[in-house]
Parts: sequence; structure tokens; C-alpha cells
Amino acid sequence: MGDSIKGALIDIVGQENFSDLLIDMVSYSYDASDHKHRPKAAVWPTSSEQVSKILLMANEHRIPVTPRGAGTGLAGAAVPTKGGIVLDMCRMNKIQDIRIADRLTVVQPGVVYADLEEALAPYGFFFPPDPASGSVCTLGGNVATNAGGIRGAKYGVTMDYVMALEVVLPDGRIMRTGSDCMKSVSGYDLTRLFVGSEGTLGVITGITLKINPKPTAFETVQASFARLKDAGQAITDIMHSGIIPSVLELLDENSIKVLREHASMNLPDVMALILVETDGYTETETSFQMAKVIEVFRKNNVIDIQVAHGTEEVEELWRARKSVGSVAAQLRPNNVSEDVTVPISKVSDLLTGISIIVRNHDLPFVIFGHAGDGNFHPRIMYDPSDPDQVERVGNAVDEIFKLTCNLGGTLTGEHGIGLSKAPYMGLEHDRVSLEVMRSIKKSFDPNNILNPGKMSLD
Amino acid sequence: MGDSIKGALIDIVGQENFSDLLIDMVSYSYDASDHKHRPKAAVWPTSSEQVSKILLMANEHRIPVTPRGAGTGLAGAAVPTKGGIVLDMCRMNKIQDIRIADRLTVVQPGVVYADLEEALAPYGFFFPPDPASGSVCTLGGNVATNAGGIRGAKYGVTMDYVMALEVVLPDGRIMRTGSDCMKSVSGYDLTRLFVGSEGTLGVITGITLKINPKPTAFETVQASFARLKDAGQAITDIMHSGIIPSVLELLDENSIKVLREHASMNLPDVMALILVETDGYTETETSFQMAKVIEVFRKNNVIDIQVAHGTEEVEELWRARKSVGSVAAQLRPNNVSEDVTVPISKVSDLLTGISIIVRNHDLPFVIFGHAGDGNFHPRIMYDPSDPDQVERVGNAVDEIFKLTCNLGGTLTGEHGIGLSKAPYMGLEHDRVSLEVMRSIKKSFDPNNILNPGKMSLD
Repeated sequence: MGDSIKGALIDIVGQENFSDLLIDMVSYSYDASDHKHRPKAAVWPTSSEQVSKILLMANEHRIPVTPRGAGTGLAGAAVPTKGGIVLDMCRMNKIQDIRIADRLTVVQPGVVYADLEEALAPYGFFFPPDPASGSVCTLGGNVATNAGGIRGAKYGVTMDYVMALEVVLPDGRIMRTGSDCMKSVSGYDLTRLFVGSEGTLGVITGITLKINPKPTAFETVQASFARLKDAGQAITDIMHSGIIPSVLELLDENSIKVLREHASMNLPDVMALILVETDGYTETETSFQMAKVIEVFRKNNVIDIQVAHGTEEVEELWRARKSVGSVAAQLRPNNVSEDVTVPISKVSDLLTGISIIVRNHDLPFVIFGHAGDGNFHPRIMYDPSDPDQVERVGNAVDEIFKLTCNLGGTLTGEHGIGLSKAPYMGLEHDRVSLEVMRSIKKSFDPNNILNPGKMSLD
Repeated sequence: MGDSIKGALIDIVGQENFSDLLIDMVSYSYDASDHKHRPKAAVWPTSSEQVSKILLMANEHRIPVTPRGAGTGLAGAAVPTKGGIVLDMCRMNKIQDIRIADRLTVVQPGVVYADLEEALAPYGFFFPPDPASGSVCTLGGNVATNAGGIRGAKYGVTMDYVMALEVVLPDGRIMRTGSDCMKSVSGYDLTRLFVGSEGTLGVITGITLKINPKPTAFETVQASFARLKDAGQAITDIMHSGIIPSVLELLDENSIKVLREHASMNLPDVMALILVETDGYTETETSFQMAKVIEVFRKNNVIDIQVAHGTEEVEELWRARKSVGSVAAQLRPNNVSEDVTVPISKVSDLLTGISIIVRNHDLPFVIFGHAGDGNFHPRIMYDPSDPDQVERVGNAVDEIFKLTCNLGGTLTGEHGIGLSKAPYMGLEHDRVSLEVMRSIKKSFDPNNILNPGKMSLD
């Protein structure tokens, strides 16, 4: 990057919001995936106008620009593969408005998910998606990746809550999409074109989110199954039962074993655990729903049901689910964690199929995830210094993606495509839809400066 | 239209699925709006392949093609303004799959909303949007216009339920968008780009819809207010109360007067009526929510609260809301019915403002609508044979749109832009977002053959 570009960037954002120091370039070379590439410079814009000027200049000089939130993404979407400028949005971090009567909040993209949660709590409201990285991830990142979480089956994902956006286009034009109203059918839905577009179409500089009143009653239960098939059938049957649990999580036998052996958790020695939460405003409502769930469990040979009484017991039940990923990760120096998703009736086919695949490649693994929306995290542990293990994990992942798509599933339920899944897009999408995605990218960003190299778009 | 085009169309769809008879051309010249223009031919395709062949030929010969569902649209989106071919999708009307465990149904675009309701009822499931024209409108039309209805505040609108589409592009290419999974973040959200695009980007030939288990408990209450301001404040306060009613409808003083005087309904002589429904799985849950609502009403000087006991009383309360549109329509030979929408805190400003505007133009009117999502239907009655009344109604509508946009609202909460609101797009959207909409249209349909003349796109 020439001195004139550097000077222009400093002119736009100020010296304090620019860096090309090695330590920063190394920090911005990676996210939570395995991908790495150093940028030439990083800037911390503090206004939409600054973002506009940066993009205008970058577009003129054909410099790649990679927008970035907290870098918690697991698919490499924030890695500046083509070098250029990293646009770290973390200094645009104001909650600009909370309008309870209008059921909305207006935030800048750098606001951390947990900070919004905290700000909404006194009103009894929340922004439901609840990604696992909520304590650090930013709302701009949530929107750019259409983040989801543990309550997706009942409350949906980020896209279900984005009402309006301010976006800076690659040529520097600033636009507003959407509406501050609960409903609008006025023109094309530009808002949702940007949700999940991973920074490839524009830089999100303002976000209007729909918010919900928080349920006030909860009931939590853990069920043990001696056969995975029974657990899978129970999940399917719950969908027929007339209610939607707010949480429906599953841990496979390896997850249970790892938690028993490596975290000394007092879990039953079974083939599958299901954690269920029902919610509502009254205890009668949560119990009514839980009774339906328990009835389904009994019909499917459940061997034990543990009902949580009080906050402490609820937290105890959650502890297994929340720590399984990190406990399993300790088994080998590295791991891959996918987020394949299938229609709910295919859950046990997916879990059985993944187990066979990874066992064939002789690697330790666990599977856990959001059974209520068919979204699972197979996590495979390996040693990156052993080329044979690296090859085997690669092959296993290939086969898992093929299995998922053959079951009518999707490559990614919540992590996004980024770099990791870009080579697999053709497994899931037909030729025409890929052509259309590329022509949209081209129409928005003819010089391909925005987050180039991602999502199989170029 | 030349004989060779006519011959080609007949070759594609068969003689029985083609017409250029005057009686059909007149039928296809209008929808439920005031706009009219005759096409040259109508075809009833029965497969995606036929739609593909028709579009391929139309694109080659630059013939306008206007896709059409049941023609219940109120904004003129299905009127073939530029002539050409009307593509009536009503013969592609199969419910192809109902997969309860996967919470989805696969339908052709010509399926009538009510037929899907009936098919889902035995499973205890429903497709929530519930448009007012549900007994006749088609699901293809619902998707193309992003239709909404009476339960929008709690259950959202059509876009919240469209999981995947099959679409034929203007050049005849057939593509699948989206996924059969509850969650997917794989590539751009092409699905929602088509939802609400009013047939301007592609022809929808297949639809996968998310479905919900039906609530089983309901409570219905009607509240009377002596001042509109109190009713407006009550609506705002309900949003703060921590619950979301499944129905929150408002009738203004003119609506009440018209129903009392012209339909002899036994309604209180008040300034505003609010109809509320709460729902859930248990009576405790619905009562808990209704208690919150009633508390809000009492704080805002409610003068009467009527609680419905049993199905008959519920239906009695609904009768006023359901008949107000048609009773008011009888006051003059013609009427316009808008669907302006504002943030909920602006409801009483909107209602007061509309009343002043229409009174200034000295025309009879009623206002009613979905207060829970800020979406109202001012209906203004006039005599189209009196040029002065025509001019006055036009001016009133102009002013209502300006008022709405000044209040941070949207031109249309559920009817769409079509022809009626196309001239007003600039009131709501900034220049850049309109440019972007036009460039998307151009990238999908460079020859502008699909539903040309709509949505201010050309």
C-alpha cells in the first residue's frame, strides 16, 4: 500500500483510527476459523461518512476492503484473503435509540450483543437470536452473517429481526433500506439482501432491530436415551405434538463420554441426552407444553427424565451443553466445528451418518446442537502437525457436507459460507442460483473490492 | 399479437390453456384496484417448464408478461398495463407435500390460501399470515405481494414463512432458492428478494412454506374509548406491558357510526373501539395476557370493556371489524382503501391527521386496521362520475401519504406498491435505494418484460 493511500486513509479517519503496525496486521489476519491472511492496513471508522470516503477511494484504486466485527466468525468471512484494508467497525458502538412502544432499537454495527441485552433488560425486552459468542460478538457481525443461536426453532434468527439498515455501497453511496414499521411491503426487500451477505455487497453502518418482550416463565428438563434412534424419533414427534419448545438441544454419546471422562460431570452413561426448555408467561403454560414433550419422551423409550427445580438446577443442566465444545476441543491440538443443518425428520439419519463417517477416518469427535431446528455441530479433533490427520479431517468434512446435502440439508445453519464452505456451494445450490448470486455481487460491486474471495462469488 | 406468437403459446400450453377472447381479455384487464388495461392474450400454464418456454419466447420478442394469482390485489400489481400476456397461475394449484415434522408444506403458486388452511387443520397446524382475501387469494400472490393480515403483530407476514422458492427467470432459466431447513445462511437470501417483488423479477412456480402449530386457547375483548387519544395511548402502553396480543384492531368513530347507522349494529356511541385477542395453549396464559391489556385500558380511561364468552360472543365482537369495510363502501359508488403504516407510537398522530385531511376535502371516510403493527386502512368514499370528488379524493390520498412518511411510516403495510403507490416511492425511499432497486430489476430483467410499469422501476 503506497504512502498516498495511507495518507488518504489517515486524512479520513485520523491517525488514532489507522494502523499498519505488524502487531495489528497479525491480529487482523485471522478470525475464529483456521484461515489466515494479513491485510496492509486497518482502520477504525467512526461514522458512515468516513466509511463512504474509504470505500470511494478503495473503489477508485481497486483496493480490497474487508469489514469486520469481533472476528468470532467460524468460516473465515472476516479474513482479508486478498490483503488490502480491514475495516474494523468496533468503534461505531453506540446504542442510538430504544423505542419500546415501536418495538425497535437503533444501533451502530459495533455494539456488542451482550451490551444490547443489558440495555434492553430493564424494559423486559430482548433481541432473541442469542449467538453462542454473544458476550463479545457485534450486532454488525450478527447481521452480516445472519447469526442464530439456541432458541432459533421458536424465535428465529437475526434476519427475522432486522427492520432497516444503513449501508454504504462499494462506490461510497450511502443508503437506507427497510422501514421503522412492524410491516412494510414497499419495494424490494433490500434489507434482507444484506443480511447474511458477509460484507460482500456493502458495509452496514446502522441497524434497526425488532425487539420482543421477554417470556417470564421457563421450565427445563433433561432426558436420557439408550438409543440415538429413540432420541431422533422423539425430536420428530415433538414437532407433531402441537407445541414448539424454546430450547431443544441434543448431545450425542461421544459428547456425554467426553464430559464424563474429561470434565468429571455427573451425567448418565447413555447414548443421547436431550435438553428441553419451554417458555411462556405463566407456569401453567410452560408445564402444559412440557407435559406434551415428556409424553413424547415416554413413548420413545426415555430411560430417565430430570426436571430442574430452581435456577441452580437449571444452570447445572445447562452446564453440560455449554461446556461440551470446549472440553472436547482439549482432546487434540486443533478441531473443526461445522454447523450442518437438515430438515428435522432427518436428524437421526444425519447423526448416524456423521458418526460412521468420522469413525471411518479414525478421529475423535462429538456431535451436539440445536435439534429443534435440525442444526448440529459435529466437532472433529485433530493434530495439525500430522499431515495424515489433516487429510483425514478434510475428507471427513467433505463427506459430511455431501451427506447433509443428500439429506436435503444446508451446508451452514449459522456460521456462514466465508472461505470454509465456499468450495461446497455447488453441492447445495443449483447452477442458476449461483449465477444469480454472482450477478448480484457484480451489480453491487463491479470492481470486486468488498470482501473479495468469499462465498464462491468470484 | 401476431399469429406466430399465438401459435407458439398454444404449442406450449395447449389450446385449452390459452385465450385471446374478448371476454377473457376484459376479465384480465383489472384486479381489485381502480386500474385497468387489457392484455393481448392469457395463458394458464400447468408446469414450470411451460412457464420457462413462455418467458423465453416473450423475452426474445420483447412481449410484456404479467403473472397473476386471484387478482385480489388492491394496488394494481396484476393489471397488464403494457398489454402482452397475462400468466394466470391458478391451474398450478396442487398442495404437493405436507411435512409436519419438518414444519413445512410445499405448494404450487395457484393454491388458494383457504385450501391450504383446510389441508393443515387436521394436523393442528396453520400458515399464519391470514390475509383478508384468504378465501380466494392464492399463495403465489401472497408471496409476490408479501401479504399480511390481522395477526401480523404477533405472527408476522408472508416473508417470515417462505423457506424456499422455485422461480422462473425472465430468460427462462429455472432456479431453486432457499432451503428446506429451519435455518440456513448459505449464500445470498434470494428467496426474500422475490417475496414482495410483485412479479417483476421472476415467476414463482413453487413455494416451500414454514408452518406453525396452532394455538389452542383464545380470549377476546372489546374496549370502548370516549377519546381517540386515550385509545392511541392504550395501544402504545400495551407494547410496554410485556406481552404481544395476537389481535389488536381499532375502529375509529366514523367506522362505529357507519356500522350503527347503516348496519344497525348494537355498538356503543364512542370515539374508538379496540378489539383484542390473546392466545396461547392454556386459559391461564391467555387470561394473564388479557389482564395486562385490561389494566392498560383502565389506566387510559376506557369507558366499557366487553368480554366475549363462548364462540358466539366472539363472533359477535368480530362482526363489526369484519363488516366495516363493506358497509362503509356502500355510502358512495366508489372508494379508495389505503394501508398506510406507522411506528406504533405514532398511531394516534396518524389517525388524527388522516381525519383532518379527509374532513378538509369533505368526503365520507372510515379508518380501521391493525393497531398492533401500526397498519391502518383509511377508506374514502366518492362518486367517480363527479370530477370534483375525484380530484378531492386524489388530493386527500396524496396528503395521507405525505403525513405517513413524515411520521416515519411506510406507504404500504400489506397491499404493495403496484401502480397505485408507484408515484409516491420517492416520499419513502432515498434516491440511492431506488437506484439500487432499479439496478436489481435491470440485472434480472434487462428487457423489462416482466410486469413492466410497476413499482416505479422503469
